[in-house]
Amino acid sequence: MQHHPENDPQYKGLTVNQGISSPPVINPYLKERKKRRNFTPVEYVEQILQGNITVLSQAVTLLESQKSEHQLIAQEVIEKCLPYAGHSVRIGITGVPGAGKSTSIDAFGMHLIHDRNKKLAVLAIDPSSERSKGSILGDKTRMEEISREPQAFIRPSPSAGSLGGVARKTRETIILCEAAGFDTIFVETVGVGQSETAVHSMVDFFLLIQLAGTGDELQGIKRGIMEMADGIIVNKADGNNIDKANLAAAQYRNALHLFPLPPSGWTPKVLTYSGYYKNGITEIWDMVYQYIDFTRENGYFELRRHSQAKYWMYESINEQLKNHFYQTPEIAEELIVKEKQILNSEISSFMAAKQMLDKYFDGY
Amino acid sequence: MQHHPENDPQYKGLTVNQGISSPPVINPYLKERKKRRNFTPVEYVEQILQGNITVLSQAVTLLESQKSEHQLIAQEVIEKCLPYAGHSVRIGITGVPGAGKSTSIDAFGMHLIHDRNKKLAVLAIDPSSERSKGSILGDKTRMEEISREPQAFIRPSPSAGSLGGVARKTRETIILCEAAGFDTIFVETVGVGQSETAVHSMVDFFLLIQLAGTGDELQGIKRGIMEMADGIIVNKADGNNIDKANLAAAQYRNALHLFPLPPSGWTPKVLTYSGYYKNGITEIWDMVYQYIDFTRENGYFELRRHSQAKYWMYESINEQLKNHFYQTPEIAEELIVKEKQILNSEISSFMAAKQMLDKYFDGY
Repeated sequence: MQHHPENDPQYKGLTVNQGISSPPVINPYLKERKKRRNFTPVEYVEQILQGNITVLSQAVTLLESQKSEHQLIAQEVIEKCLPYAGHSVRIGITGVPGAGKSTSIDAFGMHLIHDRNKKLAVLAIDPSSERSKGSILGDKTRMEEISREPQAFIRPSPSAGSLGGVARKTRETIILCEAAGFDTIFVETVGVGQSETAVHSMVDFFLLIQLAGTGDELQGIKRGIMEMADGIIVNKADGNNIDKANLAAAQYRNALHLFPLPPSGWTPKVLTYSGYYKNGITEIWDMVYQYIDFTRENGYFELRRHSQAKYWMYESINEQLKNHFYQTPEIAEELIVKEKQILNSEISSFMAAKQMLDKYFDGY
Repeated sequence: MQHHPENDPQYKGLTVNQGISSPPVINPYLKERKKRRNFTPVEYVEQILQGNITVLSQAVTLLESQKSEHQLIAQEVIEKCLPYAGHSVRIGITGVPGAGKSTSIDAFGMHLIHDRNKKLAVLAIDPSSERSKGSILGDKTRMEEISREPQAFIRPSPSAGSLGGVARKTRETIILCEAAGFDTIFVETVGVGQSETAVHSMVDFFLLIQLAGTGDELQGIKRGIMEMADGIIVNKADGNNIDKANLAAAQYRNALHLFPLPPSGWTPKVLTYSGYYKNGITEIWDMVYQYIDFTRENGYFELRRHSQAKYWMYESINEQLKNHFYQTPEIAEELIVKEKQILNSEISSFMAAKQMLDKYFDGY
């Protein structure tokens, strides 16, 4: 099986940035590409359900495309895959740059594939990414081991765009991967922006990777993230660093005590490990599956999935209502004026809002 | 001066719930009320600027009214007061029920009025409140001391309504109170719902009241609240409880160490006090004013005020865009169907959203 979209002529032919800054080249695969691209939505779905990774990869590229004809096909494929999706464990993984996310994901992946017989898809959400600029997961050499595994599918973050757009594409990609038989989905994010909330809203378990350190060194993760975590794992617990890692873990445990029990009823656990030396990996995945069993039993697993599905409908509606308003040219112009008036106390925030809304709804 | 709207015939005449469940009575003040209510917006503003608390109270009642003729007058009064507003320190106060908020606010108020020569307005946000059901601040005997002070103005939470509506009214009331010369505004909230975010978005300093206790006893405050606090104060540090309070404070200090520095550049402080015995009150207000000086100097105070003013315009626009959509009868009906289809995996969240939006925008 072929899992490297970079090496895949179909993928190359569809890359959004392709050809923008490079001189035109004659693509020897062009003819073949065209032929293959004439798949109907039903054919895409058939191939995906058979676990054809090349076609899965093409379908993801279609749904990331800006072209409306690609979008139409992609949407039909997603709707048809939907009844076959959902049968995976979805895990969000975050941590500040330098926490060792790639090494960890590589180690986790090898463990899951070889010791637990899993099929793993690794996705990412990084709204700031551009493929050409070394985004997270853009460079697969960062996950050297699993990138050679036939049981793994690695896909970089969709190209730069609004967080809502990027998150939507990732969520749709999850559906396609599940339909293709992947039973474990990682969604990686960068731990410094708004993207954690988006990831948290599409996974079953949210894993926070922290670094060993003490006091101020422990800082760096965005406010509010720690309270989202179902598990905190302290990386680089190896060599001279073991005591520091244990101390950090104890501090996180104490801090978590100050928070109320999350709605899952699960007390978030804190573990130490070494991604590089592959120590403590089994314990981490014991914890994750313990959580899955626990929440499946108490009903929270299903509840969370259901409320996530509804959340994304409402989130999508709300975002598009806002886009429609703020992208109306007269509104965009007037907003600049209103902001100034507000800052000069010439108008109250609410009166400004009222005037803008009157203008908008009168336009119809 | 008369600060007790309950004892104020003008106020009674305007109370929204009045007369609904009680038999009709002849109101001996009715004539006078009618005469006084014929104030023009300009007259309201004149009286408010002179610090006339009775008229301030009437204006707040007007802005809380559901009647559009009242709303029109209230909005004009607010716009005219706006240039005179802003010159206060606004403090959000939260804590779980039982933390001793009322006793604390009473003690803080007496300290501010008598030792720091302040004029204090105490407002509240409690979207679940109904005046008849003993909402927070509904029963003023809970703030026995300051309710007798001419330098204090206490106003219960606006009646039940959406959080957005209640928050808006409270924010408008702040403007009126500031125009009337109140230099210190408390906004109390209950520490268990979404209202903290609203309060946090309208104050300069966010104060979290916690109870002395250890381990699990410390829990109870909503997730995410601790990270909003500019100061955490541990109540009931008296008698046998002092050691426990100190221990709790130390634990909070350790936990705060795990969070990054907030954008204000201010390290949140943790203090212990006794609201009942009035110990440690001066230190709390030294801390608050130290924060105010610190953020005025580094520019964050102004920055936060400005971004709050803009926030409320956008928040208000977004809320009304959503209301308009979700209150369209065909949409409301169809949403129930779509939710079911999503839960049965018959349609993806995004396709459901798209279909709803097409329906909505076609309606125009």
